[in-house]
Amino acid sequence: MASSSNYSNSPCAACKFLRRKCLPDCIFAPYFPPEEPHKFANVHKIFGASNVSKLLNEIQPDQREDAVNSLAYEAEARLKDPVYGCVGAISVLQRQVIRLQKELDATNADLMRYASNAFPGNSGLTNQMGRRMSQYSGSSFGQIYDQYPTPYTSSWDNSFSGDHPDNAGDGNP
Amino acid sequence: MASSSNYSNSPCAACKFLRRKCLPDCIFAPYFPPEEPHKFANVHKIFGASNVSKLLNEIQPDQREDAVNSLAYEAEARLKDPVYGCVGAISVLQRQVIRLQKELDATNADLMRYASNAFPGNSGLTNQMGRRMSQYSGSSFGQIYDQYPTPYTSSWDNSFSGDHPDNAGDGNP
Repeated sequence: MASSSNYSNSPCAACKFLRRKCLPDCIFAPYFPPEEPHKFANVHKIFGASNVSKLLNEIQPDQREDAVNSLAYEAEARLKDPVYGCVGAISVLQRQVIRLQKELDATNADLMRYASNAFPGNSGLTNQMGRRMSQYSGSSFGQIYDQYPTPYTSSWDNSFSGDHPDNAGDGNP
Repeated sequence: MASSSNYSNSPCAACKFLRRKCLPDCIFAPYFPPEEPHKFANVHKIFGASNVSKLLNEIQPDQREDAVNSLAYEAEARLKDPVYGCVGAISVLQRQVIRLQKELDATNADLMRYASNAFPGNSGLTNQMGRRMSQYSGSSFGQIYDQYPTPYTSSWDNSFSGDHPDNAGDGNP
């Protein structure tokens, strides 16, 4: 829920940071309450107050809180990791999805193989397994990749290959 | 590989955009070649030239190309989706990881159950399955979540619940 510091005597965190008077129509006030000064400081450092103000004015009022929160998340990620920011998370998650998908395919193949050996006439069991496998094959996985491509995968792969906990001891080559 | 427009007569894309002389020590030139004008335009619109320059000066030269590329990726994502930017991708990928992990757990449980019914004395098979299950249980999944939390999950979940292809027809409640 967006705060509304206009109703209190305190200027919003943005106006306090920028040392300006917080007017009733302040674009920042509903999303940067005075009790969260770091939220605005981070967003300001990474995106700049002017860019954030422009962006908020270009989107619908009911989407502004989500926009501010996603900007704050990106800003915090960039401050923690100046080189990769939250794009590092996308790279790690994409590789995790690929690994889980491969593992699921292999496990389903094992299940089909053992089931067809153990119950040669049980078509109900193999049909059930077939349904489960088809949920994750091809299309939906392709859609998420088409929508969020990582054009610089090789650099991030190298960067994450040695020191990231996600890569430690997973037993894959 | 970073380009180096200093060696040509053309100013880099940043200096051309900012209408300034591209000097030999230009911080932007190696990463914003004149043949990619949109790369700088996007980054400038979202982060601002001054913030990008500051960020590049704060990190090691051998990491600057990766930093510019991740900034360009974030900027493009924010221009395509002004409300969620690339944080939308993180949210979708995180839910995909959770779904795949649940599916893998269920498939492994099926495999263990059918195998123990079909081969009551085959400890080699159940040990093999146990190893596969332990690869993805608990710790590594927890690590990626601890490192990249999504503090505003509920809003994004609502936003993505109806119209995203990732959610279409997956058969889950």
